Amino acid sequence: MPALDLYLIRHGLAGEHGTYANDDERPLTDEGFRKTRQVAKRLHALSLQFDIILTSPLVRARQTADLLLEAKLAPALQVTPALAPDGSLHEWLAWLESWRSLETKALALVGHEPNLSLWAETLLWGKTNSVLTLKKAGVLGLTLPEQTPIGNSTLFWLTPPRFLL
Amino acid sequence: MPALDLYLIRHGLAGEHGTYANDDERPLTDEGFRKTRQVAKRLHALSLQFDIILTSPLVRARQTADLLLEAKLAPALQVTPALAPDGSLHEWLAWLESWRSLETKALALVGHEPNLSLWAETLLWGKTNSVLTLKKAGVLGLTLPEQTPIGNSTLFWLTPPRFLL
Repeated sequence: MPALDLYLIRHGLAGEHGTYANDDERPLTDEGFRKTRQVAKRLHALSLQFDIILTSPLVRARQTADLLLEAKLAPALQVTPALAPDGSLHEWLAWLESWRSLETKALALVGHEPNLSLWAETLLWGKTNSVLTLKKAGVLGLTLPEQTPIGNSTLFWLTPPRFLL
Repeated sequence: MPALDLYLIRHGLAGEHGTYANDDERPLTDEGFRKTRQVAKRLHALSLQFDIILTSPLVRARQTADLLLEAKLAPALQVTPALAPDGSLHEWLAWLESWRSLETKALALVGHEPNLSLWAETLLWGKTNSVLTLKKAGVLGLTLPEQTPIGNSTLFWLTPPRFLL
């Protein structure tokens, strides 16, 4: 498999947990829209470009992914259940390998905590210790090597949104 | 000990290794000065403020620390051999604890690779795996908890300089 840059992006600020009967439908707040749009603009100004944006099916994630697409960070967006809060690491890794085999160079994934930071730790360390702080609308950048990514990946970027405004 | 934010900053781009009889005197290049000054300005624009900047005694590190001071990121700068390339983690940790006992809130340390990223890994995971990529003039931000920092710290920031311009 070729090496790949993987950008894990947490959804923006959403309404309070419990305010929607179905938590999957909880949307971004006005502030969440505003800050996430600023983050997307800054990522574009930094010349970031993804082959595709892949997102969790939950509303707050899809809205975040839409803002990234609007900022022209990728030519397309795809929704995948593997990125939902109940997605398993095993399922996610199998799915990631299918993208690697397509020779993508840079993938952006929009999803949820604690999954994103724990999956990143598994790629970096082969296990988790909850040491990576990924804020809402924050970004985490990993390089996956040609070999198996678990325990062999490296971290080149981790930023809260306040440093992207 | 109170919690503390620790910013590890790698010196900027310097001349080729081997171009100076004494490697400790190797200075930043013109490009190194320019990019490091831009990084310092951006850190100031992001409202970062350190209680003090502590630097390795090597010229390329001291010049980097001087640019941070010029950008008003801290009221003072101090030179310490513990941050030199041959500084030991043991010596460095003892010295760090003395700063923690002074109730500093945010320390900036200017030093060298691979020391900075390996020391960060020791604080995060209790051991090293060389997974953190810290570029010249890049920044790494850790939060040290009240308890012993080894294996208990968290990472909130890691950025190459190209995302700070």
